[in-house]
Amino acid sequence: MDKPKPPKTKRGQARRAQILAAAETVIGDNGFSAASIADITRAAHTALGTFYIYFSSKEEVFHELVLEMGRTTRAQVAGAIAKAPDRLAAERAGLEAFLRFVTDRPALYRIVEEARFVDPDAYRDYFTGFAEAYSTGLREAEGRGEVSPGDAEVRAWALMGMAKALGDRYVLWEDAPDIGHVVDEAHRLICKGLAP
Amino acid sequence: MDKPKPPKTKRGQARRAQILAAAETVIGDNGFSAASIADITRAAHTALGTFYIYFSSKEEVFHELVLEMGRTTRAQVAGAIAKAPDRLAAERAGLEAFLRFVTDRPALYRIVEEARFVDPDAYRDYFTGFAEAYSTGLREAEGRGEVSPGDAEVRAWALMGMAKALGDRYVLWEDAPDIGHVVDEAHRLICKGLAP
Repeated sequence: MDKPKPPKTKRGQARRAQILAAAETVIGDNGFSAASIADITRAAHTALGTFYIYFSSKEEVFHELVLEMGRTTRAQVAGAIAKAPDRLAAERAGLEAFLRFVTDRPALYRIVEEARFVDPDAYRDYFTGFAEAYSTGLREAEGRGEVSPGDAEVRAWALMGMAKALGDRYVLWEDAPDIGHVVDEAHRLICKGLAP
Repeated sequence: MDKPKPPKTKRGQARRAQILAAAETVIGDNGFSAASIADITRAAHTALGTFYIYFSSKEEVFHELVLEMGRTTRAQVAGAIAKAPDRLAAERAGLEAFLRFVTDRPALYRIVEEARFVDPDAYRDYFTGFAEAYSTGLREAEGRGEVSPGDAEVRAWALMGMAKALGDRYVLWEDAPDIGHVVDEAHRLICKGLAP
């Protein structure tokens, strides 16, 4: 089946966004297999047939949500980083922006993790794209003398992994996470390491 | 259905281990939903009915594999750490042991990640148990002056996340990962951080 074209009218765009938001909640809460298109349209308050005006399958909605997570987290992190005076401050701002994003969109975080199994290419593209931008930022900062020399790619993956694990533990598993404390402690580790 | 009791004879233990090893490969390669009990017994070269002498369901085998990953990685990491002269050396040895373990048992790594969706309690127990042991080690090292002061729990989760992301990127996605280089670079970050 051909992939439906993106809607041109404002009304169509709003309807598509409404279905996508419902899919985020329904798939994020129940997992990809258990979530049905009927569940999604019910949550979106639209008719079942409306779904197929905008998407060809559940797989396509899922893929679209992974792309949305990519666009949105990158925009939020980039926005937070842009105001930082140097790279170490940018690391702090970026980590905090990421953890606050997970607080706001926990379902989207889980969807990206489920992509490892449901849509492995999207999963890989998501993290690879993020890591490339991250490495570039670290390399430029090294050039300006704001961070010590080191393999920017390994560092980018290590720092992304750190952020993910803190998101799991302190955001997804806590009702009222103390994000400020987590960011303070993690940032100290990122800047100075464990050495006494 | 009652959970079958662990086998008492050597022959029974060997047969159970054989089914478990086959399940590791079949579920790790195909994912929990797609893998069937028939696939598992076929890979184990046993009759389908033999499965039910040792396990009551696919869920139970899956759960057992998550527990095995916990036991085995902890034993490997603890063994590597025991020989280290101090905590910073232990961090290096532990990270290297973990990445080598992922190289040897990639299917088991994927099964633990899939547990987030298939068996959320086992997923949480797995990482929480690991983090508790990790935090205790860091706290003791802080007491001996081998690491700087800091929140040991936040650090444990951050460092575990780092190891997981490096396992994803450099072990699961590479045919011939240069683990030595990855460990060197990550260890420098763990010891000294990014500060110039």
